[in-house]
Amino acid sequence: MSPTTFFSGVSRRTLLSALVVLTVLPEMLLPAGAQTGVAGDPLPSWNDGATKQAIVNFVTAVTREGSPDFVPVPQRIATFDNDGTLWVEQPFPVQLFFALDRVKAMAPLHPEWKDKQPFKAVLEGDMKTLAESGERGLVEIVMVTHAGMTADEFSKIVTDWLATARHPRFKRPYTELVYQPMLELLAYLRANGFKTFIVSGGGIEFMRPWMEKVYGIPPEQVVGSSIKTRFEMREGRPELFRLPEINFVDDKAGKPVGINEFIGRRPIAAFGNSDGDLEMLQWTTMAGGGRRFGLIVRHTDAEREYAYDRSASLGRLDKALDAAAVNRWTMVDMKKDWKVIFPFER
Amino acid sequence: MSPTTFFSGVSRRTLLSALVVLTVLPEMLLPAGAQTGVAGDPLPSWNDGATKQAIVNFVTAVTREGSPDFVPVPQRIATFDNDGTLWVEQPFPVQLFFALDRVKAMAPLHPEWKDKQPFKAVLEGDMKTLAESGERGLVEIVMVTHAGMTADEFSKIVTDWLATARHPRFKRPYTELVYQPMLELLAYLRANGFKTFIVSGGGIEFMRPWMEKVYGIPPEQVVGSSIKTRFEMREGRPELFRLPEINFVDDKAGKPVGINEFIGRRPIAAFGNSDGDLEMLQWTTMAGGGRRFGLIVRHTDAEREYAYDRSASLGRLDKALDAAAVNRWTMVDMKKDWKVIFPFER
Repeated sequence: MSPTTFFSGVSRRTLLSALVVLTVLPEMLLPAGAQTGVAGDPLPSWNDGATKQAIVNFVTAVTREGSPDFVPVPQRIATFDNDGTLWVEQPFPVQLFFALDRVKAMAPLHPEWKDKQPFKAVLEGDMKTLAESGERGLVEIVMVTHAGMTADEFSKIVTDWLATARHPRFKRPYTELVYQPMLELLAYLRANGFKTFIVSGGGIEFMRPWMEKVYGIPPEQVVGSSIKTRFEMREGRPELFRLPEINFVDDKAGKPVGINEFIGRRPIAAFGNSDGDLEMLQWTTMAGGGRRFGLIVRHTDAEREYAYDRSASLGRLDKALDAAAVNRWTMVDMKKDWKVIFPFER
Repeated sequence: MSPTTFFSGVSRRTLLSALVVLTVLPEMLLPAGAQTGVAGDPLPSWNDGATKQAIVNFVTAVTREGSPDFVPVPQRIATFDNDGTLWVEQPFPVQLFFALDRVKAMAPLHPEWKDKQPFKAVLEGDMKTLAESGERGLVEIVMVTHAGMTADEFSKIVTDWLATARHPRFKRPYTELVYQPMLELLAYLRANGFKTFIVSGGGIEFMRPWMEKVYGIPPEQVVGSSIKTRFEMREGRPELFRLPEINFVDDKAGKPVGINEFIGRRPIAAFGNSDGDLEMLQWTTMAGGGRRFGLIVRHTDAEREYAYDRSASLGRLDKALDAAAVNRWTMVDMKKDWKVIFPFER
């Protein structure tokens, strides 16, 4: 069924609330060096044109000593959304696939789920009934699958899942479905003294384990949604237990809040793809002195990836599209600007 | 009056809850290079002996290639408490002095405070009545002085205050009352590939602005207590408003929770001085494979600084002192181990 149908009646915020996680991940799949461009052109997977030029112009302006736009290294903070900005978020967010698979894996220990919604719907693949369970149903599924274990245990669960899960369309591990041009952009920024952060609505512990290897972004530079944890000494061992309670939703107006809490400085560049990134782009580009950079990835390539914007129920790009024009944020047209989408296409 | 009297009936956790802040700070006072030791000895302000040797042995063991205890650079995470571990916390925490001064500074705009507790007590210097106002009174003072403005405004308030405030005993800016041997330790760890973090019960935004210059620790490596903030576009400007509501208390069992949420990896070394650091030291040293290091600064020098431990109402070191013996954490005896306490003594 289409994402639109599935998400009818379930807002993106609801979904994100429900997808709050904490985890660890899989064997990494990118060949070494996949993140660095060829000598001479730091962005080899980007077609020449206004988009690529805007990126290079910004980086040159803020890094050249003596430039009126020069920014000292410690202040070169760049924040990236994840779902739809760095990896595929269609037809469902990866974390939702994880949650549904977990329900199936846990079912033998919960015979009562055969007759209990929303679990019954998940086990029967009845997405319509699942969607009808609304926010309450989704939160229930997320809490059952993401809480009730230690932080270390959850990490292992996510790692194991990512090692075997495959995307329904591309038949590849999710960690291969990252955007090659964005990997080059991350590496290009870091080569120019930027510190790159993730600021995602996804679960912080679902992202941390694999991002260091796939994006070159260490756990301490990942900001995301979270559930609460509780510290306890158990049988002489210190443990953190994951509780079925939302701690923080790092989406929309939550993104500047998360940036301020975790990073404590205003970014000078922000990268997103949907209305969930609007406030982060505003916070980054519309205040504070000096040159700033905002960029939105537009999904325009149904053939190589997906095409969606104003009417999408997941990853909707509507208000932020209007704001981009007013604020002169750089727009990436995936179809036109990117030579390849994924690393495996090279 | 003595701290003991003031804090009768007010627990450390209460105080910390009340001291939750977000800010920016002052002109920095340490001469350039103050953080680096002389060539040859990276810890010149430490007397030779078992304590210094334990530090050097640990760092050598985890950084020497081929050592059975070798730890790769990205995993060399070290966490430091602040109050009483890196700077003076007596007779009151610096942040409490800040809050009381703010009440006085704000009083002209609040004529009603002349007759309203706990403000009346603060304005009249009646610490006994203030202490009797208990948790509720302290929280009220902290919320009035720390919330109700934007994040940027609060930063400026803290910066301005630190530029002129002086410690009642030492008659120096608080940012000069940092421990020289600990500055050397921070620099020594970083020179050996460690990433140094603050994990403090103090307000995160009260600490961030000055720590980069004084400790060499950037804002994104500061974990602390916080109040909630709300993002809002106001007159076309993105703003974060500070709300009178506790968000997170980064003390005791909150420290491992904060470490997991903000850093996302387990430290291999942790440094504290009181029972507030017990759980951080447990989390760091009592699980996970490999060599770990825990250190406690004992305040044993009433002449040069302060002497307090098991019976202190502020910065009590009791349970953690017992745990240190069992877990073989390294104990710093300030009087015996440190040649100088403060940078200005050199």
